[in-house]
Amino acid sequence: CLHTKSRNMAKSKFEYVRNFETDDTCLRNCYIVVRLDGRNFHKFAEQHTFTKPNDNRALGLMTRSAHSVMEELEDIVIAYGQSDEFSFVFKRTSTWFKRRASKLMTHVASQFSSSYVFYWKDYFGEQPLLYPPGFDGRVVLYPSNRNLRDYLSWRQADCHVNNLYNTVFWTLVQKGGLTTVQAEERLKGTLAADKNEILFTEFDINYNKEAALHRKGTTLIWEKRDETIVKRLKLPNEEEKEVPVTRSRRRVQSYHTDIIGDQFWEEHSDILEADNC
Amino acid sequence: CLHTKSRNMAKSKFEYVRNFETDDTCLRNCYIVVRLDGRNFHKFAEQHTFTKPNDNRALGLMTRSAHSVMEELEDIVIAYGQSDEFSFVFKRTSTWFKRRASKLMTHVASQFSSSYVFYWKDYFGEQPLLYPPGFDGRVVLYPSNRNLRDYLSWRQADCHVNNLYNTVFWTLVQKGGLTTVQAEERLKGTLAADKNEILFTEFDINYNKEAALHRKGTTLIWEKRDETIVKRLKLPNEEEKEVPVTRSRRRVQSYHTDIIGDQFWEEHSDILEADNC
Amino acid sequence: CLHTKSRNMAKSKFEYVRNFETDDTCLRNCYIVVRLDGRNFHKFAEQHTFTKPNDNRALGLMTRSAHSVMEELEDIVIAYGQSDEFSFVFKRTSTWFKRRASKLMTHVASQFSSSYVFYWKDYFGEQPLLYPPGFDGRVVLYPSNRNLRDYLSWRQADCHVNNLYNTVFWTLVQKGGLTTVQAEERLKGTLAADKNEILFTEFDINYNKEAALHRKGTTLIWEKRDETIVKRLKLPNEEEKEVPVTRSRRRVQSYHTDIIGDQFWEEHSDILEADNC
Amino acid sequence: CLHTKSRNMAKSKFEYVRNFETDDTCLRNCYIVVRLDGRNFHKFAEQHTFTKPNDNRALGLMTRSAHSVMEELEDIVIAYGQSDEFSFVFKRTSTWFKRRASKLMTHVASQFSSSYVFYWKDYFGEQPLLYPPGFDGRVVLYPSNRNLRDYLSWRQADCHVNNLYNTVFWTLVQKGGLTTVQAEERLKGTLAADKNEILFTEFDINYNKEAALHRKGTTLIWEKRDETIVKRLKLPNEEEKEVPVTRSRRRVQSYHTDIIGDQFWEEHSDILEADNC
Repeated sequence: CLHTKSRNMAKSKFEYVRNFETDDTCLRNCYIVVRLDGRNFHKFAEQHTFTKPNDNRALGLMTRSAHSVMEELEDIVIAYGQSDEFSFVFKRTSTWFKRRASKLMTHVASQFSSSYVFYWKDYFGEQPLLYPPGFDGRVVLYPSNRNLRDYLSWRQADCHVNNLYNTVFWTLVQKGGLTTVQAEERLKGTLAADKNEILFTEFDINYNKEAALHRKGTTLIWEKRDETIVKRLKLPNEEEKEVPVTRSRRRVQSYHTDIIGDQFWEEHSDILEADNC
Repeated sequence: CLHTKSRNMAKSKFEYVRNFETDDTCLRNCYIVVRLDGRNFHKFAEQHTFTKPNDNRALGLMTRSAHSVMEELEDIVIAYGQSDEFSFVFKRTSTWFKRRASKLMTHVASQFSSSYVFYWKDYFGEQPLLYPPGFDGRVVLYPSNRNLRDYLSWRQADCHVNNLYNTVFWTLVQKGGLTTVQAEERLKGTLAADKNEILFTEFDINYNKEAALHRKGTTLIWEKRDETIVKRLKLPNEEEKEVPVTRSRRRVQSYHTDIIGDQFWEEHSDILEADNC
Repeated sequence: CLHTKSRNMAKSKFEYVRNFETDDTCLRNCYIVVRLDGRNFHKFAEQHTFTKPNDNRALGLMTRSAHSVMEELEDIVIAYGQSDEFSFVFKRTSTWFKRRASKLMTHVASQFSSSYVFYWKDYFGEQPLLYPPGFDGRVVLYPSNRNLRDYLSWRQADCHVNNLYNTVFWTLVQKGGLTTVQAEERLKGTLAADKNEILFTEFDINYNKEAALHRKGTTLIWEKRDETIVKRLKLPNEEEKEVPVTRSRRRVQSYHTDIIGDQFWEEHSDILEADNC
Repeated sequence: CLHTKSRNMAKSKFEYVRNFETDDTCLRNCYIVVRLDGRNFHKFAEQHTFTKPNDNRALGLMTRSAHSVMEELEDIVIAYGQSDEFSFVFKRTSTWFKRRASKLMTHVASQFSSSYVFYWKDYFGEQPLLYPPGFDGRVVLYPSNRNLRDYLSWRQADCHVNNLYNTVFWTLVQKGGLTTVQAEERLKGTLAADKNEILFTEFDINYNKEAALHRKGTTLIWEKRDETIVKRLKLPNEEEKEVPVTRSRRRVQSYHTDIIGDQFWEEHSDILEADNC
């Protein structure tokens, strides 16, 4: 037997249980992606009367929470969110938490969730949060820049597909007077072009002019900005005076833009590390 | 190349990235333990003026959050918490989230964290929460009842060791007038018996009569309770009347008791599943 | 970049690549099973004219190779083989190779394979081995005695099902004059009872009296045996004389018996370690 | 309980044990390296009287066995060996064995080991193999070409460091008349330059002119070669005649050359796949 039973408080004889922990270090030189998804957010959205097809308060709160995660975990180089999900990308060379997958994903899930409740009233004002929401997460590794970009493209393409569908669906219901069953029936088998056509010819809506926030989701990256603050300075033999001090600071910046094509990546070439390392 | 670059929105060509996810299913027939630890809670406690050596509001909030996790994740058979940590034990045969470690630990971390903020004011009243706190987590598997009990014993022995130290330390400071440096110096090299002795002879404190909450931590388990509610009943050809209806309901029950010895486990013999399965 | 290119021989600058190895330690307190399976052994058997349905030379060579593995890796407490597969069970508390799965399974696969070629001529005599055969392996963990016994039962039940089928099939072909296609057709949809019946009524064969080696496969365990050897001894002031010395030695013993029921395990109660450890 | 005990042969009730297998799929788009190391080869070398510091028969047999592995597992794009170790690199996009680590490494270990015994007599002639040797293996993943090349450089630098040491050591013993203890003492603290100097000034040996096989180890790659065979051809209305038929065939080619610098990789640019995939 590994040891005998006893009521003895001696902590040391129980410590062998630590050896049951397994190492889940992420493979080096790979991007580490943590993706969070809302648990039962369909029901959560109904109970909190989210507007359809998109609720800007809810999207704003998601982004605020993601922002909070990025400031807490500095090695995240880019985050992308849409609907009730958010993905966080740690740089290839990150050694945060010794690259232990469990620590990385639980910390992200925890910080995001506590922030979601903490900042709720900034976005929903007096409307009360009825219960603490849950998010679940996962970790995925991507060895190359191409793989990582394809991951982010996959999520943005998912945003596009869902938002186009939801936009037409709720337009048919809200403006076209269809029931949800009728709207679903109407859209069965339609392609993207068909949906664009319905919006344009029947409701005079140009989908491409819909809010970029809804069509493209939200991308968060770090950007250096010059910040000027006024400091009071007292040099020897001089009177104290106010001097402007400019310094470069990293801040999280938010974009609602295409990240599938090359332009975004060319304009922000410092996000990805070279593959040949 | 895995594919060619394109701005095309076709989601399908990016979906290969799903195959980079790895399976992290927990070995069957093992207890799954998720342990959460507060991030930088030393600083968090200071900024929120937690009382020393124990803050009952903070401990109450931890337990309330753990309670919320248990109600959300029904396969948790026992949870144990002390200080800024809480362990959750999933039953051996659980198939929750298909036993995927990442899902289990992120959901626990998320639900606990959002609950911590959500219920803050129930425990701290008007004292504001200054920022969203973070917890990190891990998963450990235990194949036998003995291993699991030793894990829980390890955590309770840790509670004992820390609380005895903290109790003497803060008594020396708060009642004995020592500085924290002097108190640390005084306790260097002392054994448990020495510390009990200091408390008893110098401060007339019997450590064993200190609050069980502080000495033993908090154990949460499910218990069946008969609950009687009054229902209005209308039988055919009779007048509507009120009848008492009793039914057995599972509720989370909290204990501050020894879980190292056998007694607790004998009294709650349904927590553990037999080893010979 | 992790480093710059250079033809320099300095080994140290390349050593960072060691950190890409991941830890694959097997969970403690679980039985570690390594199972090997012959690669393309259907073809191998044909090319080496194995007799049908069972070739005793081939089975003997499998067992000899397994024997060699057990003597090399002492923590293996039981091994079970049938057809072209063999399973090796490491004891729960084994710390061999620090329980690293990759080391355990590759060493077993390697030792088995080199032994298979090394001992070939002891079983096949002058018939040449045409090319070096391959085996692949896997590791599975079992937390309880019940699980482990069920694993071994699964393999022995597999042996039974296959051997019964093959026995009838080849009897129909070899003694009944059917083609292989006709025999396959004849057996389609038959149950175990039907197959026993065919053997008994048509060929006067009582399946239960067929060789236990074929019906039950081969189980290898360690057994203590008293061994007496004669040692020459020279005591002071006496003449040298020969004395018999008896000592207990562990030797690998082979069984062709039922391991699904309790009897085998009761008779060899030292194979399994208690669950409550 | 997962099931009740029974001597019933029904295989199905035991099959739940399959679910204890875990998935060990290798991350996509990474090179998969399997490295084998001889077990107790110091002793093996002594027992088989390998010449010091290098035994060309033993090195030839290692290479022959690696060759056999490459022909069996076609997705291996390069292999590198020295002393009693050999590394095999599977291409990034390999789907062999569904990229299951356990299958890949056990198959390599098995095929290598059976080949080692099988081809023994081709290299050692009448000198008998005394017992079946063992090799253990491991799997390591490398996400980029740089990482993979650095891995191979690490192994070749190891070859260089060891061979230089062994060459001087055995020269001091065999030609210089030192004991092994004296030779060890003499070399303590010496740098590469010192060792080269000893060889050159004391024994008139230019290390760089020593056999490339010993200094550089052995690199195996696939190469396309035109092969011309003579086929007998019979066209209609013509007499049968012999015609030469040339076709391109992949063959394993062996090199003893520097693989740390760029030249080898530029000359064999088809070994590595581009990083930007």
